[in-house]
Amino acid sequence: MKTTLIKSLYRETEKHLNTSVQITGWIRTLRSSKAFGFIEINDGSFFKNVQIVINDTLPNFKELSKLPICSSLSIVGKLVETPGTKQPFEIQAESIEVVGLSNSDYPLQKKRHSLEYLRTIAHLRPRSNTFSAVFRVRSLVSHAIHQFFFERGFVYVHTPIITGSDCEGAGEMFRVTTLPLKDVPKNEDGTVDSSQDFFGKETNLTVSGQLNGEIFALSHRNIYTFGPTFRAENSNTRIHANEFWMIEPEMAFADLKDDMAAAEDLVKFVIKFVMEHAPEEMEFFNKFVDKTLKERLTNVLESDFGVITYTDAVEKLKNSGVDFEFPVEWGCDLQTEHEKYLSGEVFGRPVFITDYPKDIKAFYMRMNDDNKTVAAMDLLVPGVGELVGGSQREERLDMLEKRLEEMNLSKEDYWWYLELRKYGGTVHSGFGIGFERLLMFITGMENIRDVIPFPRTPKSAEF
Amino acid sequence: MKTTLIKSLYRETEKHLNTSVQITGWIRTLRSSKAFGFIEINDGSFFKNVQIVINDTLPNFKELSKLPICSSLSIVGKLVETPGTKQPFEIQAESIEVVGLSNSDYPLQKKRHSLEYLRTIAHLRPRSNTFSAVFRVRSLVSHAIHQFFFERGFVYVHTPIITGSDCEGAGEMFRVTTLPLKDVPKNEDGTVDSSQDFFGKETNLTVSGQLNGEIFALSHRNIYTFGPTFRAENSNTRIHANEFWMIEPEMAFADLKDDMAAAEDLVKFVIKFVMEHAPEEMEFFNKFVDKTLKERLTNVLESDFGVITYTDAVEKLKNSGVDFEFPVEWGCDLQTEHEKYLSGEVFGRPVFITDYPKDIKAFYMRMNDDNKTVAAMDLLVPGVGELVGGSQREERLDMLEKRLEEMNLSKEDYWWYLELRKYGGTVHSGFGIGFERLLMFITGMENIRDVIPFPRTPKSAEF
Repeated sequence: MKTTLIKSLYRETEKHLNTSVQITGWIRTLRSSKAFGFIEINDGSFFKNVQIVINDTLPNFKELSKLPICSSLSIVGKLVETPGTKQPFEIQAESIEVVGLSNSDYPLQKKRHSLEYLRTIAHLRPRSNTFSAVFRVRSLVSHAIHQFFFERGFVYVHTPIITGSDCEGAGEMFRVTTLPLKDVPKNEDGTVDSSQDFFGKETNLTVSGQLNGEIFALSHRNIYTFGPTFRAENSNTRIHANEFWMIEPEMAFADLKDDMAAAEDLVKFVIKFVMEHAPEEMEFFNKFVDKTLKERLTNVLESDFGVITYTDAVEKLKNSGVDFEFPVEWGCDLQTEHEKYLSGEVFGRPVFITDYPKDIKAFYMRMNDDNKTVAAMDLLVPGVGELVGGSQREERLDMLEKRLEEMNLSKEDYWWYLELRKYGGTVHSGFGIGFERLLMFITGMENIRDVIPFPRTPKSAEF
Repeated sequence: MKTTLIKSLYRETEKHLNTSVQITGWIRTLRSSKAFGFIEINDGSFFKNVQIVINDTLPNFKELSKLPICSSLSIVGKLVETPGTKQPFEIQAESIEVVGLSNSDYPLQKKRHSLEYLRTIAHLRPRSNTFSAVFRVRSLVSHAIHQFFFERGFVYVHTPIITGSDCEGAGEMFRVTTLPLKDVPKNEDGTVDSSQDFFGKETNLTVSGQLNGEIFALSHRNIYTFGPTFRAENSNTRIHANEFWMIEPEMAFADLKDDMAAAEDLVKFVIKFVMEHAPEEMEFFNKFVDKTLKERLTNVLESDFGVITYTDAVEKLKNSGVDFEFPVEWGCDLQTEHEKYLSGEVFGRPVFITDYPKDIKAFYMRMNDDNKTVAAMDLLVPGVGELVGGSQREERLDMLEKRLEEMNLSKEDYWWYLELRKYGGTVHSGFGIGFERLLMFITGMENIRDVIPFPRTPKSAEF
């Protein structure tokens, strides 16, 4: 007999009703009396369980009625409707085989556990309702992203994880080495002799695939990266992890407007995809994690995203009458409180802030004609703040070289990046979106440690 | 006017014929006489170019006729059929704007370059025919893999890149550290004080996500990982890279037979997907890279994969009369020459070798009743050798503990892996497939450096 997945019982109920089905899965709950009992089974294929009814006509009824939670079973029985009860149907067991017996001290008993405790048992927490949902949605959001770009002909590029240069200067990096730390080889002047390291020079973990991505935009036109990135920041906050995934599309013959349109399309596509493919999980998040979630996401889906320049945004903040913790002046970085005010109060929908002062943005962003601002954009979302950051890239060789000089960066280090402008340079744009931030936005989960299977944070690299 | 992609000109020709279209792209070739000329344009969206016809009625004809290769253009013109010529259609230019002027010393002129030379200009090689095809197919194979698992309800799991333990012992690892190499902190006994390192202990780059993947198989049933993995092996061969991507599915309630069925389905799905979505690229590989390619892939698609035990395979090799470089005895690892002989000569189609001696396989593979072999499988493919390696996992706590002891591995290091057997353990299986090896198999490319955008090999981490 072929095993049927619980997902199929829920999604194709008609097909199975009043037939004998076989399912395999784990006991989530079990209660029994002398003559009969109920077992809730989850088989991993679906958020919801199915109820199994057992009674003493089963030869192993006694054994079954005392099984520890989480034991694995193979069940054959008839699927019948159960009108008027919580669940739409149940299985009347005809035979049950115990596939694996669990220990009775299973740490995930029915009572609610704190998220903090569950982090310490990251090998078991995916079995809890919350994390069953979180990690199924994580997978769906990944797929939505790949599907979005595939449908639009984008090429997926695997940019390198181990990198020979800190090109973006985006933060502290992790060193990758095979040098013996006990006895690191040194040069005569006492500095580390990195020529003896595995790659013949100093290497680190990547902070961004963007510059490599630009190479492929200038050959394959529309491309994206989606891979792990790393920051060695010693920040123990709810939104920082040292290993996280980023999505970085890059498009040739695309200006800042095209860039914003692509970001808006992507965010809406992903939300719609998840709502369609994980209605049970989204219902759960809305009920138990964040009661404003569905309203917030629906608002995003139904809005045309706003656009305002940084300069106008600063004016609005200064004239708002709000007493911000960080006062606003033209030239300053916007803080989360400002971002939330702009998207939440001023616009009430997602809004792109454009044309930031050059001094607070990276060297590769395209200089505007005013010579003060660059063609950058950040997407701010109500309740969350920044979700996307992007820009049109500087395609003019002379301007780019000037910016490198101004920022004391070495032209030699960027030789190939400059050559992209020398040979076949063209208008192009891109953006980056932090995958975990997107996930927190979509699930309502508040701590980045709870949307990553095995989070890496300062002093913690367990499992 | 909206830009049309060259892909659309080829795929939806009827829609555009005899209409005015705008395209943007880069000059691949240009030849002109006094009154007219031909420009081949590639826009990155498609493997093939489109031919633009220019003549002296264009106001900037003179400028255009002298443009360097790789300059970027925006062209408006009429798409017309060209019966009897090499290309199916061409564009008669009505106006052309130069978007970006390339330097005339562009290194990728029309003549053929060696693959070795092209590796030194990895920022430009994606623009050559070969690498335009390779990296588009790389993206398609990635998508095929995600699509295969999505359709079957598998959950995609991002297992960690930075790992606190060398759990699989699969080879030398790269250390990840923020300790100052110039002055590494030491304990009193002279050993490295890793407690001062970023994560409070020694951390390395992952060699496999399998053990973490098993965690999720026991919660979400059918899962897969697809991410970068690392080996610090100092091997300068055409099939070794130090950074490569792996796909590792893991399935609960699945035995070795289910495991082999899943691997066969996956390999066939991916080949079919690429043949359907990249016919031009596959034609190119078959013509210029490996003339047996299409025949080889078709054979795989049309075969039922064979199955033979290791023990029987060794018998066949010993009785083959072939003078192998490495003689075969029961207990030895099969070499590539043996693998190629079995799949190529004995079977003439892909074949699974099963039930290997326990001593040449990893500790987590399920012990067979003979206590000598384990429920492992390797998939061998004609012309390539091993493509997939997998096994049923040892789900019996006592057997697994015994194997750890036998192999001098510490139970403490595997505490959570052992707990997976203690709580909710069940029959489960999985396999691993090297993404780049799969790509080489599908494209016919012979050096792993030529299927990775920016390869990392000993003494080389450029771009």
